[in-house]
Amino acid sequence: MPDFRAELRVHLRAGVLDPAGEAVEASLRHLGFEVERVEVGKLLSVELSAASQEAAEEAVRRMARELLVNPVLEDYDLEVHVR
Amino acid sequence: MPDFRAELRVHLRAGVLDPAGEAVEASLRHLGFEVERVEVGKLLSVELSAASQEAAEEAVRRMARELLVNPVLEDYDLEVHVR
Repeated sequence: MPDFRAELRVHLRAGVLDPAGEAVEASLRHLGFEVERVEVGKLLSVELSAASQEAAEEAVRRMARELLVNPVLEDYDLEVHVR
Repeated sequence: MPDFRAELRVHLRAGVLDPAGEAVEASLRHLGFEVERVEVGKLLSVELSAASQEAAEEAVRRMARELLVNPVLEDYDLEVHVR
């Protein structure tokens, strides 16, 4: 089976408090940088074998539902590439 | 000045231990998923105003050097878009 690498970009849903982002934002301002907004999310890279690109994407979406993403607080984008 | 959004994808350098990635990998296997490797990184989104796309990118690379990225352990990719 071909090898794939999936990249999930997990970010907080609009309206969910992001204390990590606020802390980074405050630190950047303290260092003199003028920023308007900082958000901190997670980047998950998953390497797997699958019969096809569609099968790989389907498997990773299942992983997202079952473990990787909390749908109440988080949303995600997914990109799958052949390795 | 135009508004930009920069996305930094911060990942651990090759050879650096990734206990978070290993924990996620073990949990996925425990749930029955066949994965080869999982890496956990950070996704930072920075919104800022700058005179040009080049100026925005330059500012965010300075933020990366001064605060956002630990160059001993981490590496990053950067994408800057007009908002």
